[in-house]
Amino acid sequence: MTSDNMLRFRERLNGVVFGGDYNPEQWPRDVWDEDIRLMKEAGLGMVTIGVFSWSALEPADGVFEMDWLDDVVDRLHAGGIAVDLATPNAAPPPWMAEEHPEAMMVDRHGKRIGIGSRGHFCPSSPVYRDRSLRMARKLAERYGDHPALAMWHVGNEYHAECFCKQCDERFRYWLQEKYGSIDELNSRWGTVMWSQRYSDWGQVHLPRPVRGHVNPARQLDYSRFNSDVQLDLFRHERDLLHEITPAIPVTTNFFQNVSLNDYHRWGSEVDVVAFDSYPDPGRADASARAALHYDLMRSVGGGEPWLVLEQAAGAVSQWPRNYVKQPGRMRLGSYQTMARGADAVMFFQWRASRTGQEKFHSAMLPHSGTASRTWREVSELGRELPRTATVVGARSEADVAIVWDWDNWWAVEGCFHPVNDFSYADTLLEHYTPLWEQNVAVDVVTLSTDLSRYRVLVIPNQYLITAEQRVALEEFIEGGGHVLVSYFSGIVDGDDQIITGGYPGGLRDVIGAHVLEFCPMLPETSVAVRAVEGQDLLPAGFSGRALRWQDDLVSEGAQVVAEYTDSHLRSKPAVLDRRSGDGSCVYLGTTLDTASYTAVLRSLLQRAGVAPVLDAPTGVEVTERVGQTQRFLFLLNHGAPTSVCLDRDGIDLLTGEQHRAGETVALASSGVCIIESDR
Amino acid sequence: MTSDNMLRFRERLNGVVFGGDYNPEQWPRDVWDEDIRLMKEAGLGMVTIGVFSWSALEPADGVFEMDWLDDVVDRLHAGGIAVDLATPNAAPPPWMAEEHPEAMMVDRHGKRIGIGSRGHFCPSSPVYRDRSLRMARKLAERYGDHPALAMWHVGNEYHAECFCKQCDERFRYWLQEKYGSIDELNSRWGTVMWSQRYSDWGQVHLPRPVRGHVNPARQLDYSRFNSDVQLDLFRHERDLLHEITPAIPVTTNFFQNVSLNDYHRWGSEVDVVAFDSYPDPGRADASARAALHYDLMRSVGGGEPWLVLEQAAGAVSQWPRNYVKQPGRMRLGSYQTMARGADAVMFFQWRASRTGQEKFHSAMLPHSGTASRTWREVSELGRELPRTATVVGARSEADVAIVWDWDNWWAVEGCFHPVNDFSYADTLLEHYTPLWEQNVAVDVVTLSTDLSRYRVLVIPNQYLITAEQRVALEEFIEGGGHVLVSYFSGIVDGDDQIITGGYPGGLRDVIGAHVLEFCPMLPETSVAVRAVEGQDLLPAGFSGRALRWQDDLVSEGAQVVAEYTDSHLRSKPAVLDRRSGDGSCVYLGTTLDTASYTAVLRSLLQRAGVAPVLDAPTGVEVTERVGQTQRFLFLLNHGAPTSVCLDRDGIDLLTGEQHRAGETVALASSGVCIIESDR
Amino acid sequence: MTSDNMLRFRERLNGVVFGGDYNPEQWPRDVWDEDIRLMKEAGLGMVTIGVFSWSALEPADGVFEMDWLDDVVDRLHAGGIAVDLATPNAAPPPWMAEEHPEAMMVDRHGKRIGIGSRGHFCPSSPVYRDRSLRMARKLAERYGDHPALAMWHVGNEYHAECFCKQCDERFRYWLQEKYGSIDELNSRWGTVMWSQRYSDWGQVHLPRPVRGHVNPARQLDYSRFNSDVQLDLFRHERDLLHEITPAIPVTTNFFQNVSLNDYHRWGSEVDVVAFDSYPDPGRADASARAALHYDLMRSVGGGEPWLVLEQAAGAVSQWPRNYVKQPGRMRLGSYQTMARGADAVMFFQWRASRTGQEKFHSAMLPHSGTASRTWREVSELGRELPRTATVVGARSEADVAIVWDWDNWWAVEGCFHPVNDFSYADTLLEHYTPLWEQNVAVDVVTLSTDLSRYRVLVIPNQYLITAEQRVALEEFIEGGGHVLVSYFSGIVDGDDQIITGGYPGGLRDVIGAHVLEFCPMLPETSVAVRAVEGQDLLPAGFSGRALRWQDDLVSEGAQVVAEYTDSHLRSKPAVLDRRSGDGSCVYLGTTLDTASYTAVLRSLLQRAGVAPVLDAPTGVEVTERVGQTQRFLFLLNHGAPTSVCLDRDGIDLLTGEQHRAGETVALASSGVCIIESDR
Repeated sequence: MTSDNMLRFRERLNGVVFGGDYNPEQWPRDVWDEDIRLMKEAGLGMVTIGVFSWSALEPADGVFEMDWLDDVVDRLHAGGIAVDLATPNAAPPPWMAEEHPEAMMVDRHGKRIGIGSRGHFCPSSPVYRDRSLRMARKLAERYGDHPALAMWHVGNEYHAECFCKQCDERFRYWLQEKYGSIDELNSRWGTVMWSQRYSDWGQVHLPRPVRGHVNPARQLDYSRFNSDVQLDLFRHERDLLHEITPAIPVTTNFFQNVSLNDYHRWGSEVDVVAFDSYPDPGRADASARAALHYDLMRSVGGGEPWLVLEQAAGAVSQWPRNYVKQPGRMRLGSYQTMARGADAVMFFQWRASRTGQEKFHSAMLPHSGTASRTWREVSELGRELPRTATVVGARSEADVAIVWDWDNWWAVEGCFHPVNDFSYADTLLEHYTPLWEQNVAVDVVTLSTDLSRYRVLVIPNQYLITAEQRVALEEFIEGGGHVLVSYFSGIVDGDDQIITGGYPGGLRDVIGAHVLEFCPMLPETSVAVRAVEGQDLLPAGFSGRALRWQDDLVSEGAQVVAEYTDSHLRSKPAVLDRRSGDGSCVYLGTTLDTASYTAVLRSLLQRAGVAPVLDAPTGVEVTERVGQTQRFLFLLNHGAPTSVCLDRDGIDLLTGEQHRAGETVALASSGVCIIESDR
Repeated sequence: MTSDNMLRFRERLNGVVFGGDYNPEQWPRDVWDEDIRLMKEAGLGMVTIGVFSWSALEPADGVFEMDWLDDVVDRLHAGGIAVDLATPNAAPPPWMAEEHPEAMMVDRHGKRIGIGSRGHFCPSSPVYRDRSLRMARKLAERYGDHPALAMWHVGNEYHAECFCKQCDERFRYWLQEKYGSIDELNSRWGTVMWSQRYSDWGQVHLPRPVRGHVNPARQLDYSRFNSDVQLDLFRHERDLLHEITPAIPVTTNFFQNVSLNDYHRWGSEVDVVAFDSYPDPGRADASARAALHYDLMRSVGGGEPWLVLEQAAGAVSQWPRNYVKQPGRMRLGSYQTMARGADAVMFFQWRASRTGQEKFHSAMLPHSGTASRTWREVSELGRELPRTATVVGARSEADVAIVWDWDNWWAVEGCFHPVNDFSYADTLLEHYTPLWEQNVAVDVVTLSTDLSRYRVLVIPNQYLITAEQRVALEEFIEGGGHVLVSYFSGIVDGDDQIITGGYPGGLRDVIGAHVLEFCPMLPETSVAVRAVEGQDLLPAGFSGRALRWQDDLVSEGAQVVAEYTDSHLRSKPAVLDRRSGDGSCVYLGTTLDTASYTAVLRSLLQRAGVAPVLDAPTGVEVTERVGQTQRFLFLLNHGAPTSVCLDRDGIDLLTGEQHRAGETVALASSGVCIIESDR
Repeated sequence: MTSDNMLRFRERLNGVVFGGDYNPEQWPRDVWDEDIRLMKEAGLGMVTIGVFSWSALEPADGVFEMDWLDDVVDRLHAGGIAVDLATPNAAPPPWMAEEHPEAMMVDRHGKRIGIGSRGHFCPSSPVYRDRSLRMARKLAERYGDHPALAMWHVGNEYHAECFCKQCDERFRYWLQEKYGSIDELNSRWGTVMWSQRYSDWGQVHLPRPVRGHVNPARQLDYSRFNSDVQLDLFRHERDLLHEITPAIPVTTNFFQNVSLNDYHRWGSEVDVVAFDSYPDPGRADASARAALHYDLMRSVGGGEPWLVLEQAAGAVSQWPRNYVKQPGRMRLGSYQTMARGADAVMFFQWRASRTGQEKFHSAMLPHSGTASRTWREVSELGRELPRTATVVGARSEADVAIVWDWDNWWAVEGCFHPVNDFSYADTLLEHYTPLWEQNVAVDVVTLSTDLSRYRVLVIPNQYLITAEQRVALEEFIEGGGHVLVSYFSGIVDGDDQIITGGYPGGLRDVIGAHVLEFCPMLPETSVAVRAVEGQDLLPAGFSGRALRWQDDLVSEGAQVVAEYTDSHLRSKPAVLDRRSGDGSCVYLGTTLDTASYTAVLRSLLQRAGVAPVLDAPTGVEVTERVGQTQRFLFLLNHGAPTSVCLDRDGIDLLTGEQHRAGETVALASSGVCIIESDR
């Protein structure tokens, strides 16, 4: 549900928020005048300030210099630009490192991290926490009533791992709270293995480097602890800000491709989910990968619209080759975020820096200034966006959900499995991409989410499953839901302990089969599979390839969909289908090649009555957002020029043209069309 | 010679030992009942217990909980299963790390290793040694008279390197004992190089990281020291156990592919050699590599039968892709160990664990239980093995030996040679594989072994050679022996000092030639070689390829066998043959391609009158073991179905069928046949 | 200008110096007799002694043993061989590490480096400095008047990075001296980025590891500091030696492929530039790369002849595969050094060591002794060299200069650019190679060098440029000079701060264009370019490929030379040509394929009236040195046998034959011809 402060925020910003990070302290004041002028020219509605301003605001411990920020906030307000004010905790100043070295992060190998970059603090340090809260309070008290203040931006891209003594001690407390007794910890961690039984809490430590691999249950708890520790930092600042300025929403910017934070847990702690989006324009899978993350962001926020707080206007600078966004692609990518639920399109950063590590990261206003293609595209977008104001607040509805579970991520990549080069993130994308290509709306959930609203659930390699989750899954199927689950699922419980009784202990009844043995394939090899008779998921005679892994699978009532025609598992099942009342569970005992996987998935969607948002040519991404009175159809052309036949009457928000159902609209390459219709 | 306690052990076990590691402390007692029942069903004769039980037996310093072990030992005994009882020193409990941090290992970079895995102790720690001996004494006193006790298993896969202060001091003592004076050390280490001359013993340290590479003589002594330090640990426990239980044999499990321990030195310290065998079923060279290691194990034990203490029933879990053993391959591999001298076929482990780092390592009783292929194959093997009981104690006789020398390994991979990507282990396998393919029996020796029993000696790249070894080699040839030695041999003495007088200083007379220059080839390049006239090792007109390396070789009386027809060494010798009385020495100045090397080797074997055990089709491994009254012919089919013509009358132990010489026996793929004949 | 002591040195050595490193302390005295005899046989004129003799000369702190060195120096003198005496500071003895651990180097991660190799000292340690100066004084006082002493060789291949507290403190002093105030440092380093503002000098430290990358301006200053610190070490010893022995030249051996020392700054501090030359004979680009370094050495010494203090007689030993120098190649390579300005051809080392890390590094006298090809080639060269005595002192004159700038190297590889896999060293070689192939004489300069003597200036990717340098460049062009400069030049000032006003801020007027955006290409991709009409650098219709990078380039008056015919920059300029009076500036907005780059370069050379030294077939390197009365034409054949038509009368120094202009001289493969003519 939208929080009150976010309702107020929407009302105030009055449209999709356009803006970016603004670091005026890097420039003399005469540049500030130009900044405000050009911001207005480009139509910026809000800027984020202060993210890395701690040493500018507090050059020495307890010595504050905030006049310059007063000036900035006033000027922005005078220019009609709202302020997303950051608490600058991501980069504590040099004085803290010097005077309180224990407030600095210690790496896995026990070395204290030096200053000169960012994110170098210890999240358990009392000094760090005290000084960062003091700073947050200063800012809240000074600017809480300022009319420019629209939002709080706490910290920056939380993603730390600290192995200092303070964190070590805190890990012990966390474990004591979780397990109560050392015997319980011993039992749950399985410390009987390799003589790891603890006889006293004092013996329990963070997983510092060992010979070989550490106990995976200990590693898993550390990952949970670490996400909690950082979330705890955020919560303290949020609570303080809520207390002083209850009307101002508080958020922090989530981060792409970072496994450290369980965003499903974080999502409910922010007033609005915000995301830094950096797809790599040099990668072929950039748009699908981006879409998956956008669906995640929308989902962890409970389906609420979310904000893009950062994206690149052009190239970034941290990769080996930093490919630019081709003409039109920044605009296309921006609308893609809106198509999947974003109500803000913001950039890192407003004006490209002259100094430091990120000076070659693109900006709305690049070093080459207003003559640049970047500026032209950015300012055109800024002038265009107000036409889409009615989209704000509209939500997406999905019949399909995919499971992305951090506990599982940490566990399945933890230690010593049959296939140790397994990537959960890549696997998620493999499972998601055909859904994206078919323009099927997808939510991103865990098995602890309320699943009743979905018709199809895709579960990639859910190695770890709790008893509650298994029950939920059974109820989902009994309730008529359809599941697609891939191999190496249901193997361990929440303590990374094998669920006994034959693989997959947690899902044997659900899939209607058991697995005798996991048979990984060697790299670059594959095995032939073919559809069998009597099933309805694959066309008769269909054949394909199996990759990476074979389950030695024994059906216990499930219909065999496809079998191996090669290898020592010849004639054994590769894919199963267990019908159960109106529901069903399709089990993949291998990684199917893309075409085969897509075929199975399509059939399952048909069975469940799930249709694409719209039939559209390959390369056209289609989504729908639904507001209180209108609905919005987004057409995004990632490919060559093409056209799409509409299924409804409506008005194109960007052109103002009226369209009728059955009418065909042309889409240029990188073209975008947003059709607003009555609901 | 077989020790008395091993004679008693054999008598007691009465056949090939079948069993595995058993970790009952990981399971509740009701599972123990099932364990004993299924062990009996599968025919287990002995299990190893206690390997990682330290923290279960002594949860706090001096606090012992051994009742559970009493129960386990009693139950096993009641089930007729003998006990191989481990001293659990491989994994000291957490309390030791907490109370005596100095007892924990320090890595090469000076970081103390954390707990949570195994093998984390400092081998020089007085506390560690005291507590591990105390535990060994406890076990010996408590179970020494128990009728179940059949063997002691000391520690686990010794292979540590610790760089702590205790080890540093001990290294100094070791050096003082070896060299007597600091001047002698300076001279032998060649410290005049790069200003490393020591003026006081206190300046001498373990080879911690330096800029670039450390003095190779110092590194070599460190490797010797490190092997000794670990052997010393083993010896202390062995002596204590021998004192308390003289009738019980003591062993420890040797380890594959580990260069840290000189197993030729270790072999004489155990009552029986025991080995953990983990060939990678995903590698094409797995069987040849395994065979080489089995021959090594037999040889370091003085030709005595040895034990497989661990192998995998299916896949392991520590590699990137853990390939399963295909149907029949576990059985084939088990018989391969017996074919090359093993009298025990044991597994890690009995029941697959639910927790920890190795829960996906296969087991005799997998997570999928008795329905699994693994269980079926394991229990069938267990029921079949008793038919082979007469094999126990039989030895192998080899006319050929290959040199595998740890001193040389450490030295030749030590530092800065003409070819620094040289792998001694790979080179050994290259030299060995054609012998294995031709079913020629091979022992694995050093040049300090008594060589008089052999007719052919293969010496791969014996860079380091002592004066005594050179004399032994000369005597071998003078006595009618035939030698094949490859380039970069005889270069340095035991102190890694160049033997002056022109390469190869240590072998110039032996090979009848000297080397002017080492000429490494660039990767992916080769040079043509052809046979010359007047030699009898290669067919007239034979041509092949030279790889990796060329000696600029000048014959001093040796017959040129092949010469280069390309490169700046065109017309210079690539292979030489020096006849000397009845003996000869073939010298390879390059790495020949496999076919050429095989041709040379075959001719040399013919010259020496060495024949294969039996002529058999490609893919069939053939060995012979000879007992007091019988001999046993092993036929192992690694390839497609085929048949083999027998050279003797005998009975097939596995089928009970009688066969006659000249008769052809069929071998299925992975098929095994063991013909017992009178001696 | 040649220093007095070098004039005296030349007079004394009376010809090209032939010799090598001599480490007699590694051998018994009877070997010394043989050494002197063989040195005379091979014609050695000078040997370097003492480089690693510290522990032999001072086995304990303050205990000196120098008699052996007296003996060595006397014997050499008696044999007519001059001495290049080293101060042995590169390898302080073990006693220093033990008694003064703080005198040892600390690595980037804070670990103190162990002994057992070399170069392990802290360059800021007072103890190290005191003891090394004491040793230098001892040597100077003892041997300063010895008639054998010809040269001082200070240390060895300076290239250290130490991160200890002493260096940390010194870095702060260095910064205080440079910046005066902490505010100035904050401003110049741009510490406003990421909250790095310092409020006290005590907060400023060496760039120890951070999360991600450190502030690039701080890293850049550290690189400058580090070069200075080492130069300071050298200077202290040099000054002491100059004081005691003013008539003896002082040098140190510069080092190939080491980015740590700014040799342009070092070059003016030595009495003569000396270089250790180790081209890899296994690499196709070895000769071009060597030539570039030789031109650098000559240039940093102000055009004076320089010395090869070390080269390998055959193979080295530190690479994965150490390829030998093929027959004739050592001689060819030796003359190549002379062709590009060397007046000495010396080797590491005289006699191959028996022990230590470098025992397989080739030597003048190898382990295989005087029978070896190496010895034959070395001693033949030694007997041949005196014929070239008149070359000594002759200089080279170049009309073309290439810029190799350490400040730029450090900055451009410092941190986070559009293409982070950029290698400045490889790029230099790419720009240089066509000049070398065309036998155009080239100096190697910075933009702070006096450019007025050149007609063409090649500037590879000069990312960092100061205001003074930009002015110099403008003056160069205005004065009629021609410039070829490649993309990503003129981007930042000396503080690594973006020069604002549109890329390339520092060069916009110079190139007559600006750049809107940097567009890196993905690896393995390229874009088509073609010549446009109206330009005169490429033939009409010329087409080629662009690699790695495209500038989005807008001409502001420059003539477009080539444009893209593909990619989103189709029809935009790839290469520009700005004429300005008699001068011009060609700008490459991409990496052209080799053929296209060569075509542009050739045209520019023609425009500037720069001709090759001589027209010669491909594979023949041609250079000229000019003495006071004669000039010397060097012909070096890197390829198959060929012949060259002479442009002058002269005498072949090596054969004594007289040649006439227009005459053709034959060159065998690896053949060398040196034609002496009147000036």
